[in-house]
Amino acid sequence: MSIVPPEQTSESIDQLGPRARRASHQVMGLPAATRNQALVELARLLAAQSQQILEANTRDLAAAERAGVSGPKLKRLGLSAEAVANLAAGVRAVAGQPDPLGGVTRQWRSPSDLIVEKVRTPLGVIAMIYEARPGVTVDAFALCFKAGNACILKGGREAAETNAVLLGLIRRALGQFGVTADAVQLVTSTDREQLKVLLADRGNIDLVIPRGGEELIRFVAEHSRIPTLQHFKGVCHVYVHAAADLDMAERICVTGKTSSPATCNATECILVDGAIAEQFVPRLVAAYRAVGVEVRGDAQVCRLGGAAVQPAGEQDFGCEFLDLVVAMKVVGGKFGAGSMEQAIEHIHRYTSDHTEAIVTADPVAADTFVRAVRSSCVLVNASTRNNDGGALGLGAEIGISTSRLHAYGPMGVQELTIERFVVRGQGQCR
Amino acid sequence: MSIVPPEQTSESIDQLGPRARRASHQVMGLPAATRNQALVELARLLAAQSQQILEANTRDLAAAERAGVSGPKLKRLGLSAEAVANLAAGVRAVAGQPDPLGGVTRQWRSPSDLIVEKVRTPLGVIAMIYEARPGVTVDAFALCFKAGNACILKGGREAAETNAVLLGLIRRALGQFGVTADAVQLVTSTDREQLKVLLADRGNIDLVIPRGGEELIRFVAEHSRIPTLQHFKGVCHVYVHAAADLDMAERICVTGKTSSPATCNATECILVDGAIAEQFVPRLVAAYRAVGVEVRGDAQVCRLGGAAVQPAGEQDFGCEFLDLVVAMKVVGGKFGAGSMEQAIEHIHRYTSDHTEAIVTADPVAADTFVRAVRSSCVLVNASTRNNDGGALGLGAEIGISTSRLHAYGPMGVQELTIERFVVRGQGQCR
Repeated sequence: MSIVPPEQTSESIDQLGPRARRASHQVMGLPAATRNQALVELARLLAAQSQQILEANTRDLAAAERAGVSGPKLKRLGLSAEAVANLAAGVRAVAGQPDPLGGVTRQWRSPSDLIVEKVRTPLGVIAMIYEARPGVTVDAFALCFKAGNACILKGGREAAETNAVLLGLIRRALGQFGVTADAVQLVTSTDREQLKVLLADRGNIDLVIPRGGEELIRFVAEHSRIPTLQHFKGVCHVYVHAAADLDMAERICVTGKTSSPATCNATECILVDGAIAEQFVPRLVAAYRAVGVEVRGDAQVCRLGGAAVQPAGEQDFGCEFLDLVVAMKVVGGKFGAGSMEQAIEHIHRYTSDHTEAIVTADPVAADTFVRAVRSSCVLVNASTRNNDGGALGLGAEIGISTSRLHAYGPMGVQELTIERFVVRGQGQCR
Repeated sequence: MSIVPPEQTSESIDQLGPRARRASHQVMGLPAATRNQALVELARLLAAQSQQILEANTRDLAAAERAGVSGPKLKRLGLSAEAVANLAAGVRAVAGQPDPLGGVTRQWRSPSDLIVEKVRTPLGVIAMIYEARPGVTVDAFALCFKAGNACILKGGREAAETNAVLLGLIRRALGQFGVTADAVQLVTSTDREQLKVLLADRGNIDLVIPRGGEELIRFVAEHSRIPTLQHFKGVCHVYVHAAADLDMAERICVTGKTSSPATCNATECILVDGAIAEQFVPRLVAAYRAVGVEVRGDAQVCRLGGAAVQPAGEQDFGCEFLDLVVAMKVVGGKFGAGSMEQAIEHIHRYTSDHTEAIVTADPVAADTFVRAVRSSCVLVNASTRNNDGGALGLGAEIGISTSRLHAYGPMGVQELTIERFVVRGQGQCR
């Protein structure tokens, strides 16, 4: 039996922001213990009501199949009992993280002897716009609420039944601690014109985070009048330097491409130092071929890699393949002359500001690369897929930002807060 | 003799972003010593060429007067020899500040034993949109450059001659250290359609800061596809609590309104605790009257303040008067019942998230107020005009942000940088 509410009209969309703003005043004031207890209760409910969630998800899956959805999109929509248990565990982990709020991060005295403090405070109201994956509903709520924020969630229409059940459980957990249901609201409208109304509510919404395909993210970035944080795509480069351990380099290049090719932190382009190209290119091409990866190379890679290499077109550099395809290029001369400069220039030209890596045993080369390349995450001797909130030890991640503002790179609970000024005086006027 | 270049066309506007982006790669890599030396040289040139600056400014003033500009706008356009000396001193002070870049702000080990660092890095390219005041050209460049950023500056058309001279001096200083002239570019077009072209260049510009009247700021916020930080207005409240030192409260209320009424941190509304209203309202009304401030009060203030008080309309609360006018309201009953709650509710309803103050000798009341009110700066026993980068000890300020993102409150050099991830591994793949 469906429990999906009717779609919102323009009048009801209008009300989401003001309601969230009022709710945010309550959520901001909740002690850490209350926020954490509500999250623990949500984790308990998710585990206890796993069956109800899976039944709703089955209805969503059936409807999606009837509508002709298939492949990866259908897969992202599906939840298993194990996935629900993981969601519950994730919420419990967020509850267990240190409180990001209230701490005085800096304190000093002003020239007129005011005591100035910077204090961590919630952002207020966060709107999250995403696609099919229903787990995001739970993750996004947990992170926003942990950081003292109200949230407005817009998931994919395909997940409507699952999201409605998850919303019910979240509100049940909140209700047990006297927290208003408006602390989390779902956008049920599927009309993009209505979404534009929401994205114009600068007075009530403090941050918009879009997550999903590039088309969705561009739509949100284009129409939002509210600050948005996102990455459009991840074109991640690996530079294999002359001083690289070639076994390590091969592992980093191959797993970075193959372990999850459709993710934003997958490796898309390999730059090989000219000094080791004759030795390394044939070996890496063979390794890619063995696991079914198509290599598109520049003229030198074609020469060194033989028939297994497709000639790269200009569009293959800077391309996010999201598939078992990789671009490859030799940078610098046979004795390595100009290699670092060319690698950096290539990355400056094609970077998506997401993730780049260097493989080298030479610490000076590593430092040169790290200083010159300004992407949100620069790795030395590790695969690009390590750029992930969980892998880097942030606990959980609400997204990765390539905006050079507020947050640059993976965003955890801390990034859902802001520092404000608290000033104590003895009557100072000016 | 005018040295103003011709206005940019849409083709040349298109080029500002890409040129700034290329320049930013050089500026990002400059050592702190080079950045500081170039600023010191600029300060020297400003002092040495004061006469040239003042002559250009005289031409701007004459043209503005011919065009019918008068009053505060004309005043903001004018520079004196003392003002130029102050600009030079300001640039020297920025050069003397600690380097905001390169420091490792946090370091930890990830679950897979990666060494993860967060490192301060420049934003990249900053566009500053402002009005008549030519001094902003120098201040904005100095702050952006100190933090390793390239900048694009759009001042008011009235200041075209002065800004052209200032740009020449800035580029001369940069040139002496081999820094490309594109590290600072002026928008000379006065066409708002051209400005929209600039505001759409998300790929090359990382941050837009509009400063000036609310109309300009709303135009920029509406049309920018690039993250913007700004405040639209400052509706600053002072809550005089029952436990206030009334002498101090009077000083804070009166100077906060009168010392510079046209600034965003001037006091616009006084909330008086009901428990002290009979004693304090007549006194404060008389003090305001003595310095020519018009008081617009609610019914109780009218009753207590007598004929000197104008009855406030609904539009007077939440109003940024920018003039010698103040709104006043009694909150809570005669014995103080509900006063704090009503003050907080009033502020939640009318706040511009800019600045609020409480006057009280009771630390518990102060803490309650500070926790509940979430404006960018909350002051205890100090006037609202203390919310200013200089007054709070930030050194210099490029603006005040009431966006709850990236920066909330006064923005100094530190706020023109961002933390990114640098990760060192030993071959970790995933």
